Order: sequence, then structure tokens, then C-alpha cells
Amino acid sequence: MAVYTDISDEELAALLARFDLGEALAFKGIAEGIENSNFLLETTAGRFILTVYERRVRAEELPYFLGLMGWLADQGFPSARPVADREGQVLQTLRGKPAAIAEFLPGLSARRPTVAQCRQAGEGLAWLHQAGAGYPGRRANDLGQAAWAGLFAGLGEAAEALKPGLSKVVAADLALLAAGWPGDLPAGTIHADFFPDNVFFREGRFAAAIDFYFACDDLLAYDLAVTLNAWCFESNGDFNVTAGKALIAGYESRRPLSDAERAALPVLAHGAAMRFFLTRLADWGRTPEGALVRPKDPLEYERKLAVHRAGLSILADRP
Amino acid sequence: MAVYTDISDEELAALLARFDLGEALAFKGIAEGIENSNFLLETTAGRFILTVYERRVRAEELPYFLGLMGWLADQGFPSARPVADREGQVLQTLRGKPAAIAEFLPGLSARRPTVAQCRQAGEGLAWLHQAGAGYPGRRANDLGQAAWAGLFAGLGEAAEALKPGLSKVVAADLALLAAGWPGDLPAGTIHADFFPDNVFFREGRFAAAIDFYFACDDLLAYDLAVTLNAWCFESNGDFNVTAGKALIAGYESRRPLSDAERAALPVLAHGAAMRFFLTRLADWGRTPEGALVRPKDPLEYERKLAVHRAGLSILADRP
Repeated sequence: MAVYTDISDEELAALLARFDLGEALAFKGIAEGIENSNFLLETTAGRFILTVYERRVRAEELPYFLGLMGWLADQGFPSARPVADREGQVLQTLRGKPAAIAEFLPGLSARRPTVAQCRQAGEGLAWLHQAGAGYPGRRANDLGQAAWAGLFAGLGEAAEALKPGLSKVVAADLALLAAGWPGDLPAGTIHADFFPDNVFFREGRFAAAIDFYFACDDLLAYDLAVTLNAWCFESNGDFNVTAGKALIAGYESRRPLSDAERAALPVLAHGAAMRFFLTRLADWGRTPEGALVRPKDPLEYERKLAVHRAGLSILADRP
Repeated sequence: MAVYTDISDEELAALLARFDLGEALAFKGIAEGIENSNFLLETTAGRFILTVYERRVRAEELPYFLGLMGWLADQGFPSARPVADREGQVLQTLRGKPAAIAEFLPGLSARRPTVAQCRQAGEGLAWLHQAGAGYPGRRANDLGQAAWAGLFAGLGEAAEALKPGLSKVVAADLALLAAGWPGDLPAGTIHADFFPDNVFFREGRFAAAIDFYFACDDLLAYDLAVTLNAWCFESNGDFNVTAGKALIAGYESRRPLSDAERAALPVLAHGAAMRFFLTRLADWGRTPEGALVRPKDPLEYERKLAVHRAGLSILADRP
């Protein structure tokens, strides 16, 4: 949860004066998103989310992210469409920070996804990949496989502090991933953070995806691997085979995987666990005592790394 | 801002199953209220606020507060009406904590109230006093004048740490307030925390009051004094005479003050400043380092105490 920026009546009124959205009827900070401040804004024209971009999101990248959200909505995919002001501008400034207004999408995220929701999530992800095809924006994945060795440099001590001996194991993983990383699979625009928090359901069906601020160009099957890791592990660290199969089946109901993609899933999922392990490890060490946002435990992804290292998921199985 | 309690899908579904409110369409933690966790809940039946009661609010007092909200709504006053489940129960339990669902009221609170909004707030407060007349619930004001000396006992050192010499000045204030406190003014059900955060406007007019968890029986004019302190001071610590006159005029447009109430406003406002100074001083000392909620600065109310001690507000003037 996070609301870092307080918006005064005058600031909100000045912002709305740039738009054709009528007058504000309600305005509430919402406890959603770790990196940005989000507000539910109701006006005489409807309901919207106002986002003020705080740390991490680089202002120069916002046109890519906001453009993608609009592109997906244009293709009929349920993504919140950014709203342009009277001059056609989507990107705004509030308190010196970048900000944008997007449509409000109803829906509930799943705190503990069921197998049926995993299937729906897989289908939603494939839909996103199909709808994203043709988006002209380009953004390299700065947290992709090529970046991991660099991310790990300087984190050896933090890894040891987390678990003695871990630094060597991670270094070996990184070598393995570098050697085995597939280069020739279908690529495109991926979400790259398709976690349960970022997916809405309505009446049991996939209803929307939000939070596109890690989206980038990368392998489509890598996005599926990130999603499998985020949705299909039990809290005790075990991979839930039934959930994993359902998620892949849901994905393939819209976009069947090639044999090469299917064969690469184990290494992609191993790598996807590495990516979140590394950024959580970095955040863990960096967060000052008494900070308002608690970093996520890197041990969760250390366990996922171990499962994939040992080939204990179903992903190595042929269908 | 505060969301202390995380509610899972299953918990929300189990709660809603007790009600005739249909299925959940959206559910978002909102950054509102310091003591409780509040969620915006949209169902097929409409929009609601789910509150989970955390610290301070005593479960046995909730029937008084929730009953008052319903009573006021029955009188046509814009207060969020609590929703009863199929068995007629308003009070629920979530994660072992008391919880309740109330209607969602649209409206915007004023971060920096204008003179016109002060007038509207005064009118809204008088309306609340009129609508509250006849409410059969009773609750003594445990933060009223009789409690202040006890609250200050043990806070002398904290006062000195805040400002050397302050402890003696506060003790003298307390003696003055005890000697001069009026006993025979009109009393009734008061809000006791009618701060800008707790008042909604719509199209420039008073639209709703929320957060009745300090409501109690006390002098009606004391509630006005609390409100004057909360709405009519500038950030530099000066009392804004224009705003104060407007707030009183708004109040009197619905409920004219008696001569005795008018004459007592200076001592009531001095006491109202004491009440918030004391609880903020207590919270200031008690909050552990690194806590997620920052306590409010007691110096704000120390300055208001000084203004009233010196008779620098307009409240001593006859109309």
C-alpha cells in the first residue's frame, strides 16, 4: 500500500480544469501499488484512477507505458485507457511529479488464486500478448537475462547474509541460465509483472490487467514463466502442479505454445525466479530501518529458484 | 492513511454471503482514517465502505456509534447508514476484529477550507446537532473537561521536552478551565471530531459527515468550539477571523446560539484546544520509532492554546 503524495483541493481542481471530465465528486487515496500513489477519482463524467508516479518509474518511459495501455484498450483488451486532456496530453504534472488519469476498471484481484483463476489468468496473459502484437512502442527489458549478472554483482554478501553458501549457488545458476537461455523464441510486448495483484476478475472470469510499468520487449514464453512463478506456488514453497497445468492450458486456449517454447519453459521459469530473487535481494539490503514500505522477502524467490534448479516443477514434462 | 487488516477473497465472500448485497465487483483499501482499516466495496447492489475496527475503538461502544449513524440517516442527515445482514446484525467480525458495512457517500473533504466551506461546515454541524436530538444512545465524553487533569498527569515531562516551561503553563490553563467551565449550556449528542477530514462537500455545499467514533454527550457549543479550532486557524498559527465568523454564522443559520453559549465560546475553544493538545502529546510520546503512522504534531495545538489563552481569537467579541 502506498500513497506518497498528498493532493490538495486546489491541485485537483487545477488538474481537472485541463480535462473534459466535469467536477470531482469523490477522491480517495487507495492502498494499491507499491511504487506509485493511486487515487480513486469520481467525477460527473465517470470513475477514474489518478496515478502520481513516484520512485523507479522514469518519466521518459511513461509515454511507452501509457501508450501501451491505450493500444491494448483499442484492441478490445481490458486495460485502463489513459485519458487525454483538452490539448491531447495524457502525461500531467502534479507537485512536480509525473501523473496520469486512466479509466477505472472494476474487478477483484485474487489474494489466493484458485486453479480456475490460474486458468483464467493464463488465458488473460495470452490475450494480452495477442493484443500487444503490433504496438509500435519499443522498450528493452532492463531486468532481463542479460542484466542479471550485473544485478548480482555486489549482492554476494547480501545473499550470504540471507543464507550461507547461497552466493555460490546463485553464481552457478547465473552461468547455467546464460548458457541455456533461448534466443530464438517468439518475442513481443510482455507485461513482465503479471502477478495476482495486477489481475482483476469479475464473476470468476479474467476481467482486466493493470500496472504495466515493467512492460517491455522480451520472449512471450518468459512472460508465461514469470506468471507461473507468481501464481502457482503454494505458501509452503511447493509448486502446485494442477494450478500450473491449468495456467498453461488457459494460455494455450488462446495462443498455443510451439514445441521450442514448451521445451524452454523450465529454463525460462528458472530465470524468471532469478529476476525476482535479484531485485528483492537488492531492495532488502537497500531499505532503511523504519521505512514505510516493507520490502518483499527474497527467500520466497530463493525457494522458487531451488525448485526450478532441481527440476521439481511440472515444466520439464512434455504435455 | 491506514489499512492494517488484509482481507482475503474467501473472507470477503464469506462476509458478503451474510448480506443481501449481491457479489463483489471491486474492493480496494482506502487511505482514510487513522485508527481503522477502510475498504471501498462495490457490489451488484451499490457502493459501500467496509470498516475493520482496529485500535482505540472499543467493540462494546460500536453499537452506540453505528446506531447514531443510522439514527442520523433516518432523520435525513447525510451520514453513512450502516447495513444490516440478513439476521438484522450490523456488527460483524473479520479476522477476529469488529467490522461493519455502511453506505458509500460521495463527496470531497477540503484540505485547505475556504471561508465559504467554513460557513457550510458550521451549518452542517448545527444540522447534525438538530438531527441527533432524540437519539436514545448515551455515551459520556471520556475526553471531556473532567478528564483533562488526569490525561495531563504523567505528561509534564513530555510537555517540557516539547517546550521548556510548558508544563506550568498547561497546569495553569487546566485550573482556569476547571474554574470557568460552563455547566448549564444546552447539551446533546456531539460529533466531537468534526475536522475537515471528516466532512464532505459536493458542489460547494456541505454533503456529509463521517467518522463518528468520538461522538458522545456533551455541550453542543463545545462541539462548535472543537470545529472552530479545526477549521479556522491558518498554518502560521493565526486565527482567521473571517473564517471563524463565517463558521459561526453558518451554525447560527440553523441553530442560533444563546447568549450564554456565545459568552462561553472563548473558554470552550480554549478547552477544545486543550483536549487535542493533550491527546496529541500523549500519542507523541507513545509512538515507537519506525511506526507506520506518524503522530500529529502537538505543537499545532500548543499554538492554538496560546491564542485562546491570550484571547486573540474573535470568540471573546460580542456579535
